Amino acid sequence: MENCIFCKIIKGEIPCAKIYEDEKTFAMLDISPASKKGGHTLVLPKKHCELITDLNDEDSKNLMLTIKKLSKALLKFGEGLNIIQNNKLVAGQVISHVHFHLIPRFKNDGISIEKWVANKYKDNKEMDSITGKIKDLLKE
Amino acid sequence: MENCIFCKIIKGEIPCAKIYEDEKTFAMLDISPASKKGGHTLVLPKKHCELITDLNDEDSKNLMLTIKKLSKALLKFGEGLNIIQNNKLVAGQVISHVHFHLIPRFKNDGISIEKWVANKYKDNKEMDSITGKIKDLLKE
Repeated sequence: MENCIFCKIIKGEIPCAKIYEDEKTFAMLDISPASKKGGHTLVLPKKHCELITDLNDEDSKNLMLTIKKLSKALLKFGEGLNIIQNNKLVAGQVISHVHFHLIPRFKNDGISIEKWVANKYKDNKEMDSITGKIKDLLKE
Repeated sequence: MENCIFCKIIKGEIPCAKIYEDEKTFAMLDISPASKKGGHTLVLPKKHCELITDLNDEDSKNLMLTIKKLSKALLKFGEGLNIIQNNKLVAGQVISHVHFHLIPRFKNDGISIEKWVANKYKDNKEMDSITGKIKDLLKE
């Protein structure tokens, strides 16, 4: 993709703090880290795709193996690890090239990623209605 | 694992709002959803593992294919999608059976997952020091 900043970084046209690279995947530091201490790492496919659903099966498998590889290192770096992938701007995706955020965590680091509000369903009927809708969408 | 609530759910010993199941993976509603509207879905391997790094390559690939399958449906349900996987209690992992949260997003839904504080590195030296440490850990 001509105007994709991640494609330019992968091609070496824009510098980055590269951590890992193989034939299909790439990892570097996020320049705006949630955690400076732990090295907020981005893992991405070299091939340009916007959403997780745009990855073909082979590419998504390769990406998972690189995520695992980096996670192993980062779990030695930090005390825990959040892995986050955002799809579309409404979910916080700023660069339209699919990427996973790997954010090492430390006690009292003040990061609030996992502190979403835990709601409750009204009743089983509400749960059944939602699962029914998703099951229908799975058939499409 | 004898005392794992997710293992018990997979075996059918505890009820759940099941969405999808195949030989190796399982998907259901989270009972404490970040988004009720969009159906906060959990995707997990049937085999008990605690951390993403405990999954073998085959199991992690299968999990990724199920995540993609569910994501496709959930991106039709919502306007965007966060995919989150937490490792260890300090990162928000409450159940010690590896699971991915798939949280559909809608405009002005008030969810703050992706709104972490974006820090800055002091200089390139700081970035080099961090990438150096992670590269060393990758070799272990």
